[in-house]
Amino acid sequence: MPKIYFPDVQKIVYAGPDSTDPLTFKHYDPEALVEGKSMRDHLRFSASYWHAMVQGAADPFGGPTRPLPWTEASDPVQAARDTLDAMFEFLQKMDLGFWCFHDRDIAPELETLEATNAAFDEIVGLAEEKQRETGIKLLWGTANLFSHKRYMAGAGTSPCPEVFAHGAAQIKKALEATHRLGGAGYTFWGGREGYDTLLNTRLSAELGRFAKLLRLAVDHKRKIGFTGAFYIEPKPCEPTTFQYDNDAAACYAFLQHHGLEKEFSMNIEANHATLAGRAFEHELAYSAEHGILGSVDANRGDPMLGWDTDQFPTNLYDTTAAMGVILGMGGFTTGGLNFDARLRRQSVEPYDLFHAHIGGMDAFARGLKAAAKIRAEGRIEALVAERYRGWESELGRKIDAGEASLDSLFEHAVKADVGSAPAGRQERLENLLNEAI
Amino acid sequence: MPKIYFPDVQKIVYAGPDSTDPLTFKHYDPEALVEGKSMRDHLRFSASYWHAMVQGAADPFGGPTRPLPWTEASDPVQAARDTLDAMFEFLQKMDLGFWCFHDRDIAPELETLEATNAAFDEIVGLAEEKQRETGIKLLWGTANLFSHKRYMAGAGTSPCPEVFAHGAAQIKKALEATHRLGGAGYTFWGGREGYDTLLNTRLSAELGRFAKLLRLAVDHKRKIGFTGAFYIEPKPCEPTTFQYDNDAAACYAFLQHHGLEKEFSMNIEANHATLAGRAFEHELAYSAEHGILGSVDANRGDPMLGWDTDQFPTNLYDTTAAMGVILGMGGFTTGGLNFDARLRRQSVEPYDLFHAHIGGMDAFARGLKAAAKIRAEGRIEALVAERYRGWESELGRKIDAGEASLDSLFEHAVKADVGSAPAGRQERLENLLNEAI
Amino acid sequence: MPKIYFPDVQKIVYAGPDSTDPLTFKHYDPEALVEGKSMRDHLRFSASYWHAMVQGAADPFGGPTRPLPWTEASDPVQAARDTLDAMFEFLQKMDLGFWCFHDRDIAPELETLEATNAAFDEIVGLAEEKQRETGIKLLWGTANLFSHKRYMAGAGTSPCPEVFAHGAAQIKKALEATHRLGGAGYTFWGGREGYDTLLNTRLSAELGRFAKLLRLAVDHKRKIGFTGAFYIEPKPCEPTTFQYDNDAAACYAFLQHHGLEKEFSMNIEANHATLAGRAFEHELAYSAEHGILGSVDANRGDPMLGWDTDQFPTNLYDTTAAMGVILGMGGFTTGGLNFDARLRRQSVEPYDLFHAHIGGMDAFARGLKAAAKIRAEGRIEALVAERYRGWESELGRKIDAGEASLDSLFEHAVKADVGSAPAGRQERLENLLNEAI
Amino acid sequence: MPKIYFPDVQKIVYAGPDSTDPLTFKHYDPEALVEGKSMRDHLRFSASYWHAMVQGAADPFGGPTRPLPWTEASDPVQAARDTLDAMFEFLQKMDLGFWCFHDRDIAPELETLEATNAAFDEIVGLAEEKQRETGIKLLWGTANLFSHKRYMAGAGTSPCPEVFAHGAAQIKKALEATHRLGGAGYTFWGGREGYDTLLNTRLSAELGRFAKLLRLAVDHKRKIGFTGAFYIEPKPCEPTTFQYDNDAAACYAFLQHHGLEKEFSMNIEANHATLAGRAFEHELAYSAEHGILGSVDANRGDPMLGWDTDQFPTNLYDTTAAMGVILGMGGFTTGGLNFDARLRRQSVEPYDLFHAHIGGMDAFARGLKAAAKIRAEGRIEALVAERYRGWESELGRKIDAGEASLDSLFEHAVKADVGSAPAGRQERLENLLNEAI
Ligand SMILES: [Co+2]
Ligand SMILES: [Co+2]
Ligand SMILES: [Co+2]
Ligand SMILES: [Co+2]
Ligand SMILES: [Co+2]
Ligand SMILES: [Co+2]
Ligand SMILES: [Co+2]
Ligand SMILES: [Co+2]
Repeated sequence: MPKIYFPDVQKIVYAGPDSTDPLTFKHYDPEALVEGKSMRDHLRFSASYWHAMVQGAADPFGGPTRPLPWTEASDPVQAARDTLDAMFEFLQKMDLGFWCFHDRDIAPELETLEATNAAFDEIVGLAEEKQRETGIKLLWGTANLFSHKRYMAGAGTSPCPEVFAHGAAQIKKALEATHRLGGAGYTFWGGREGYDTLLNTRLSAELGRFAKLLRLAVDHKRKIGFTGAFYIEPKPCEPTTFQYDNDAAACYAFLQHHGLEKEFSMNIEANHATLAGRAFEHELAYSAEHGILGSVDANRGDPMLGWDTDQFPTNLYDTTAAMGVILGMGGFTTGGLNFDARLRRQSVEPYDLFHAHIGGMDAFARGLKAAAKIRAEGRIEALVAERYRGWESELGRKIDAGEASLDSLFEHAVKADVGSAPAGRQERLENLLNEAI
Repeated sequence: MPKIYFPDVQKIVYAGPDSTDPLTFKHYDPEALVEGKSMRDHLRFSASYWHAMVQGAADPFGGPTRPLPWTEASDPVQAARDTLDAMFEFLQKMDLGFWCFHDRDIAPELETLEATNAAFDEIVGLAEEKQRETGIKLLWGTANLFSHKRYMAGAGTSPCPEVFAHGAAQIKKALEATHRLGGAGYTFWGGREGYDTLLNTRLSAELGRFAKLLRLAVDHKRKIGFTGAFYIEPKPCEPTTFQYDNDAAACYAFLQHHGLEKEFSMNIEANHATLAGRAFEHELAYSAEHGILGSVDANRGDPMLGWDTDQFPTNLYDTTAAMGVILGMGGFTTGGLNFDARLRRQSVEPYDLFHAHIGGMDAFARGLKAAAKIRAEGRIEALVAERYRGWESELGRKIDAGEASLDSLFEHAVKADVGSAPAGRQERLENLLNEAI
Repeated sequence: MPKIYFPDVQKIVYAGPDSTDPLTFKHYDPEALVEGKSMRDHLRFSASYWHAMVQGAADPFGGPTRPLPWTEASDPVQAARDTLDAMFEFLQKMDLGFWCFHDRDIAPELETLEATNAAFDEIVGLAEEKQRETGIKLLWGTANLFSHKRYMAGAGTSPCPEVFAHGAAQIKKALEATHRLGGAGYTFWGGREGYDTLLNTRLSAELGRFAKLLRLAVDHKRKIGFTGAFYIEPKPCEPTTFQYDNDAAACYAFLQHHGLEKEFSMNIEANHATLAGRAFEHELAYSAEHGILGSVDANRGDPMLGWDTDQFPTNLYDTTAAMGVILGMGGFTTGGLNFDARLRRQSVEPYDLFHAHIGGMDAFARGLKAAAKIRAEGRIEALVAERYRGWESELGRKIDAGEASLDSLFEHAVKADVGSAPAGRQERLENLLNEAI
Repeated sequence: MPKIYFPDVQKIVYAGPDSTDPLTFKHYDPEALVEGKSMRDHLRFSASYWHAMVQGAADPFGGPTRPLPWTEASDPVQAARDTLDAMFEFLQKMDLGFWCFHDRDIAPELETLEATNAAFDEIVGLAEEKQRETGIKLLWGTANLFSHKRYMAGAGTSPCPEVFAHGAAQIKKALEATHRLGGAGYTFWGGREGYDTLLNTRLSAELGRFAKLLRLAVDHKRKIGFTGAFYIEPKPCEPTTFQYDNDAAACYAFLQHHGLEKEFSMNIEANHATLAGRAFEHELAYSAEHGILGSVDANRGDPMLGWDTDQFPTNLYDTTAAMGVILGMGGFTTGGLNFDARLRRQSVEPYDLFHAHIGGMDAFARGLKAAAKIRAEGRIEALVAERYRGWESELGRKIDAGEASLDSLFEHAVKADVGSAPAGRQERLENLLNEAI
């Protein structure tokens, strides 16, 4: 019998918007149907092992504040077993269908890679059992190629091939573990694949080797028969000064340049979009419209702050926009909404982890309902259709069909000058959005 | 005989670093050789018609302050003729070898496109003559597809095909004028090719039509036999909320997705890099390393300000980094350093235009000399080579040659763990950089 | 009989949240009571003359797009009379109780200051009549000391005393007009009171003269018997590189240094807070807690953009936070919510001005209701009170009463070490906030 | 005999600009005179204990990389003794005249405050001896009131008075140690004196208590006879979401509001200015012109990054501007240039600490020489004087003398309209600046 870490918390259930019990869902009703599919299946919520279980809310100016009783065993492998217990207790009580992990979250780094791998294998085996018992699934796995000092200059982009090899070895294990656990995907977040200064950096050599590492992972995926998705997670900086996988467009440029664009889709994190100076909605829409939106790290940043605060997502404008894009592309395939979000440093009570996830899940449930309402009403879409109506004219059809040239368009333009363009109606559209929230 | 607009200014000449005459070059010595090529040929300086001659230093909170005597004729075509005189007087006195223009800078928009085109043709003819007389060349031309209200929602990405056609017609004329003037290139800066709000925007339709417009321009280039370069100029925002041609990576993603990556290279503007949250040096290096660095809009922004201040470039760190990248790629082919830079709103004296260009030219001359010195000494390069030395090992060579797999690297890694990575030596490299400035 | 400019628009009325008529209020019910006071009296909505009537949605890359039929008379004074008609028609149809103006919005700058003042006096007289007829009041007036090129280097901080004098003369007239119109306040927004570069700036001389100008205005206010409030409106930059009235704290430092802190309170603009890197809520709370929150320029910016977009306020988080601060300080005295907000450049239809203001008024009405609900429930306040409970202990009381010293606190601390601090519960509080929206 | 930690490094000496030995000064010639004072006395360089000796270059995504052999003793007090040895060896070899420390840098936090204080007293005694032996002086001391989890919600602004008391106790000890060591000043950097969310914050109560804590420190300073300066170090955020001591203006507003403005001056850190969206030069000039510039934390940030990178200062524009302000105010009194700067995470070699400080010292030496040259030549000052010349007119003198009113200025203005203002000449001034660098 595993130890119980949250004895005072029962399974969180839907109690409706009038409930005043903080430990209930007010909006997330898992089996309720939206556009004919359950909320559970639309939203595919996941918790992240690192934030939920491993980190203690330290920051660059102070150590951990949050009690992590499951990590207290003196034997690190026992602590890893206890943490797995706590994680699955949490996942079940939170009614979360998915989880995500880095290799070094679930099992410790020991003296040798061999010993590390042995401990990892044991914990993966235990996780397999947990999944079987609970029905909870793995959304994606990944390898931590940034915390250890060997990765101080990157993994695939390290100036040292031994480090490249070590990273490759970690990817092999993490990918195989993800495969064994039936993971729906595998994520690459190249924490230190970037540079601190161009003064000491060979840019195209580094980018080429990073592509090579990804290619090796694709080959290995094929070899072992893993059919899940491969995701790249853009982030512009931090810990590096400049991260190659800056934003969705930079990742897409990189993948195309190296012929990898069919193998990867994006894992878009809200806070990373903020850091890149892009709207979360933009990164989602850009990816969806290019057919490369895979999964979402659901959190939020603070536009006034320049680091990865990884706060829980509560902004209804963001969740409505996100679910609008996701409904618009027909929903997730392999991806989901992973709470890559951490408690604030002063959130030191055991309930806080539940409050935080409840807030995030309710916010996305409201976003889902609002987006579906907007789609059902069709008032925004009607105004947009009217704005682009001109493209249904003969001129529009000819241009779209490739039957125009600069010469033919010149002939058209000199005959009939155009003084203005269709109205944008942004304020009216913003009012319609607010009516849905 | 054209009117003289700068009667008190003689041709600016090199007078050495000890000169106290503000109207001399202290560092730019056009015929002096650096790495076996004259400074003039390295730097290929250009002035921009719009900033030098047309705009009067208005800003969103106030009208023009700067006297523009060449624009005062009541007949707009006469004003255009006078402005051309002033521009070539300025170019000659400034000893600038190149100029750049938008179609609507050099000739006015009149009541009909036909009348507009007639005036434009006349001025282009006069410019051809001026070029012949002076030996000054056209670095690039472009079409202004953003000022008129018809372009309020873009040109290639307009919701209205008539606007698309009008834009196409302008491109045809501007491209043909550029061809007639022997321009070394043609630039696309899609001022309003982006969106104000995603609420009213069909993203992939707009991107597809923008690509189509570029494709039509490529076809027309072939048809008329123009062999100059085509440039895209990235900018992230302003006037739009979000510009599709955000930064070099976004442009490269776009070009690849639409099969246009062989047809275009980048015109990197320093201030646009700043607005995009990227270092100017990054945008240059990224472009050069991907073989898509075409030309440079030489100016500077203020990292504390969020708009396009277009200040004259004076920062020696920026000019040294820029010239390092440019020397590293073997120098410009068709491109050059175009001062897309405007006088400050309080710079209302006739001399200011000269002071500003002298400052920019001297700053780039110093950057060129510093970059060449760094290359000649080789001290930075030696430290970088040492940092990457590991890649010359057997392991490194195998990985680079594609002879490794995750499995083989795993075998390597378990045998020989790697505890750290080569030192970065950033502070030492920064000291060496400062020694060169 | 004045001309009718919005013939198709009737007076906007409250129709409830289920109304699908875009030209109705869904939430703003002017006479409905909240905390015992009507919404109208809580919110004190005002429209700004410059954005509603004068500017045509130009931006730095293109001219106006928006039709302004009331400005078309060839005689500028007649255009000013027509514009006043249009403004009051708009105010009445929009059911706005207040308006705001700059001197140069309502009447043109003519050849001499004398002629300008004569036109201004005439229009002020007409406005007085309009106010009498409609019951609409003036929230505040101000003088435009930034558009004319004489102000290119500031007014109170100009390097030229003649410019200082001209600014003083404008303030005198604008203040007297505000007094005549029964204005509840007068605002100072020092558009160009700052610097472009420290290289040409005498900082303390400029700050001292700016304080002197404000002191002269205070003296004149006393002399003419104006009893309304004086506001300073912070903004960090644009058009200047650095504005002395950066944010509320900078203004408060300035006012205290020059002994003016009793004479001025803040007019906080949301977008200016964003530009300053501060949350709108912070600027409001900072001002309220220091007793210097006077009035609000209700708009919004885009945290991803670095200029003053002056969008209409629609974000319910912002309006809820704002109304929480305003209710918390007991409501407005002289101030109100002035829509210092402009239509987007593509909003070119006559209805758009109404849609925009309806959106802003409904958003603030919802914010008011949400803030009042939070206060009525008391759930957030109870958690906050619990957090600070320790200060009710003997130790807390002694410190607050000034009965402690470093020595006595040292004695206390060595006896009873304290390991942690009360929990912050941010996630739970954020959930409670979302429940109210 | 203390252990030698840098056996291969000799005392760093001036070798002139042509030296290629990286371990020499190229510009900092300690006894060379500038404006009649030695460089050493102008610059008053200091190293910071925390960055030089204590931190190992960890970041939020990875642990320490840098070897710190002096910290390896298993007894933490022995490690503290060893670290002190290493620090003074470093200071001497680096030819630094000053050092700075936090209480918890130099001695460990032990189980009880009593034990902690005993260890602290011992190390302070050893430091006193080191100072005597070497002639090196203490620039300032401070207390670390942010790392321990008890301070997670601030010290003076904690919601818990026990935490306030603990902070007070630390300040008492750190202040007395600073006094004993003859420190020239004492710094308050309120790391967590701010808020994470306004939802749980009582703003004015917190600000009032923070002022109270500062007042207690002032009282204690008097009581013990410490005559050094008290500094406040502004920083806008990180680790907090919002720091009350945001920038110099916010600090000055706070100090004035609480009657503390005569007791404190500013310790301006370059990187904190960058984070606040202000130019370093602005923060220096603002402070100097208000008579509150005390000392400088000499480092640099990256304007593209939103966190405190604390890089070594190498930018000659920054150092020239800084020394211009410092020369302009007559030089430092108690303050100096403290390298609050850390090695990059990949700088893991023992020499790097020397390279980094050499780079910073040479950069400030060049800045000092450039600023002195600009002052000696007077060309910039002459242009500035000309710009403000108008204030020497009768009108200017009357306004400055307080002999004008709005009425009298109105009379003046209607008689003689002013069309423009003196030219700004920014480009010419920027050229003159570049000529000095
Ligand atoms: Co993530
Ligand atoms: Co993140
Ligand atoms: Co440009
Ligand atoms: Co620009
Ligand atoms: Co405003
Ligand atoms: Co504004
Ligand atoms: Co500091
Ligand atoms: Co810092």
